[in-house]
Amino acid sequence: MRLLTQLLAPKAIAHAHCDLPCGVYDPAQARIEAESVKAIIEKYNANEDPAFRTRAIAIKEERSDLVKHHLWVLWTDYFKPPHFEKYPQLNQLFNEATKLAGAGGTKGSTDVAVANSLLAKIDEIAKVFWETKQA
Amino acid sequence: MRLLTQLLAPKAIAHAHCDLPCGVYDPAQARIEAESVKAIIEKYNANEDPAFRTRAIAIKEERSDLVKHHLWVLWTDYFKPPHFEKYPQLNQLFNEATKLAGAGGTKGSTDVAVANSLLAKIDEIAKVFWETKQA
Amino acid sequence: MRLLTQLLAPKAIAHAHCDLPCGVYDPAQARIEAESVKAIIEKYNANEDPAFRTRAIAIKEERSDLVKHHLWVLWTDYFKPPHFEKYPQLNQLFNEATKLAGAGGTKGSTDVAVANSLLAKIDEIAKVFWETKQA
Amino acid sequence: MRLLTQLLAPKAIAHAHCDLPCGVYDPAQARIEAESVKAIIEKYNANEDPAFRTRAIAIKEERSDLVKHHLWVLWTDYFKPPHFEKYPQLNQLFNEATKLAGAGGTKGSTDVAVANSLLAKIDEIAKVFWETKQA
Amino acid sequence: MRLLTQLLAPKAIAHAHCDLPCGVYDPAQARIEAESVKAIIEKYNANEDPAFRTRAIAIKEERSDLVKHHLWVLWTDYFKPPHFEKYPQLNQLFNEATKLAGAGGTKGSTDVAVANSLLAKIDEIAKVFWETKQA
Amino acid sequence: MRLLTQLLAPKAIAHAHCDLPCGVYDPAQARIEAESVKAIIEKYNANEDPAFRTRAIAIKEERSDLVKHHLWVLWTDYFKPPHFEKYPQLNQLFNEATKLAGAGGTKGSTDVAVANSLLAKIDEIAKVFWETKQA
Repeated sequence: MRLLTQLLAPKAIAHAHCDLPCGVYDPAQARIEAESVKAIIEKYNANEDPAFRTRAIAIKEERSDLVKHHLWVLWTDYFKPPHFEKYPQLNQLFNEATKLAGAGGTKGSTDVAVANSLLAKIDEIAKVFWETKQA
Repeated sequence: MRLLTQLLAPKAIAHAHCDLPCGVYDPAQARIEAESVKAIIEKYNANEDPAFRTRAIAIKEERSDLVKHHLWVLWTDYFKPPHFEKYPQLNQLFNEATKLAGAGGTKGSTDVAVANSLLAKIDEIAKVFWETKQA
Repeated sequence: MRLLTQLLAPKAIAHAHCDLPCGVYDPAQARIEAESVKAIIEKYNANEDPAFRTRAIAIKEERSDLVKHHLWVLWTDYFKPPHFEKYPQLNQLFNEATKLAGAGGTKGSTDVAVANSLLAKIDEIAKVFWETKQA
Repeated sequence: MRLLTQLLAPKAIAHAHCDLPCGVYDPAQARIEAESVKAIIEKYNANEDPAFRTRAIAIKEERSDLVKHHLWVLWTDYFKPPHFEKYPQLNQLFNEATKLAGAGGTKGSTDVAVANSLLAKIDEIAKVFWETKQA
Repeated sequence: MRLLTQLLAPKAIAHAHCDLPCGVYDPAQARIEAESVKAIIEKYNANEDPAFRTRAIAIKEERSDLVKHHLWVLWTDYFKPPHFEKYPQLNQLFNEATKLAGAGGTKGSTDVAVANSLLAKIDEIAKVFWETKQA
Repeated sequence: MRLLTQLLAPKAIAHAHCDLPCGVYDPAQARIEAESVKAIIEKYNANEDPAFRTRAIAIKEERSDLVKHHLWVLWTDYFKPPHFEKYPQLNQLFNEATKLAGAGGTKGSTDVAVANSLLAKIDEIAKVFWETKQA
């Protein structure tokens, strides 16, 4: 189904992200990493082997970093002044979302509830993102 | 709409990719980078400023590398022996797709047709990927 | 002189940045990269050799990325809600500063004036940063 | 002795790997990382200090990643269709070798036998590689 | 105060580091990472939570690597033959400082004394660096 | 033939490099990258297409960086005080070799003679390295 929407998606809903800029942005990049972080936390809590847990924590650190990076790119590169005027909550949304992927969030915690909060925050951002795309 | 399928997508169609493994894989990661590569090539051909073209080529190199990386991860980490038995064309598909993102493909070329071939190949892989997910 | 302030600097003015967090933050990290970007632009404009210019543009791209990264870290990891309340201009300051190191800023431009604007914006951020440190 | 073969090696047996491409490929890059992985596992099993073991696991993760990367580059960039026709086992060899450096291999295991299997698989690949070079 | 010296610093005391070269070098880059390493060790010793300690060790590894990298850049890119003649101790200073950030130093140890030795060594290097700048 | 020496090589001539340390070092890592740099320069001079030359320069920059990195690791991590006493030329050898891979060397130049000087310097280092291994 995902594949279909991908193939059928009108160019207007293209995804962009590089800093040429190529103009392709997609909150899915941050969400995929955040889903990975959540899965890692679930596997961490289900496995007491020290070696496995060490790997889980190290990988969770990297994946959380990727979540922060993809969100920062959207905040700085995709969103423009008019967006911030229309969505005054955007700055706080991004600051809270990136904090939720940091030391006070999924990096420092092994509580799946924290990963869920991060995912929810990313979905709030994605909702605004796709609204601006439809506009 | 993309957001919706994301929110509604059953866990069975989750996306995975890290090497814990977290179990989250999604061909969208490779496709997003490939769409970026295509957009970069289009902007390159529409702009003769040497400085801009230098940036476009350098960024296209990085993005093409990301396409290769995401595809390699799917080939090695997601697909298992039974998949290769059921889809004997998989090895060649991945080898051709990654070559299409390399020196003989989008790295070495500024022809948008090459980027389109890469995108088509990624969609063939995605089709197989989602079939195995539904299975 | 710089060395002296470094040796004499009270722990209270320590610099931090990792996401443990270690608590060491310092706007100097972003400023050093921005000074590098400015110097690269000056050398680019003073040298017409195509090979040199290609290197300058590729390196300027990386250094501008580092500026963005160091600023994003300060924005998300160092600054807390009380800071944003006391300095309502912070969000815009960081968004403008990171944009000034991106496609619409030092990445896309070879005009030294753009690098100067970036440096000025970083100094505004640094001024707020050190005020919160003295507090 | 190694140095000698290096100095005496005819240009025809040069090693290449970048994606210009420069034409320099050498399975030694993957093997050196795999030998490192094996040594790390041996030191891990000989030392019960938690801090040391944490470092060993984190570094083993990185080195295993490098093994995968170097092998992927050979599979996609060096080997051409004629090679795959002459050596039909190549695809499976590479898929198994990279899997042996992943979650189900040296990343997830601290058993030196797994590292030995990885080294043996790399040597099988190297044997084919050097045969194609002599051809 | 740091900000002031930054703003007042004559161009002659600029900081450089990229390999264009841009000509901007500053031992502060290595020192900030080393201060981070020291803070990480202090937090590691004050917290017995295994997950926290795993994160601390993994981050300490990365930050120690950055210290080594910044020092290597100064040693190779900034210092020229005349400097090595005037300061015959430079080679040993850099070799000892980078070793102090490696396996036998802050990577392998969780003793804050090791981090202090690293900081002291960096300050010796910084002292020479600023003398050559004033010259 | 290379493969053979690899398989027959006594453990005493193992290769090491990570900072656990795993104890595996091999000058071949630096040499392979330097050979790549030389091949890139040769292809650069044989091809006047601006897009190709931009790619060549950007890739040469990265590969030269890898040469510097691998040499720095040998200098700091492998060589110990007794080696520096027995081979007083080591510090200068490494400083000159890494400079030859930098702005004043293969990064800044497209002259194959510079790449040859770098390769010769690496071979001098390798000669000392293997002598210390046999010792």
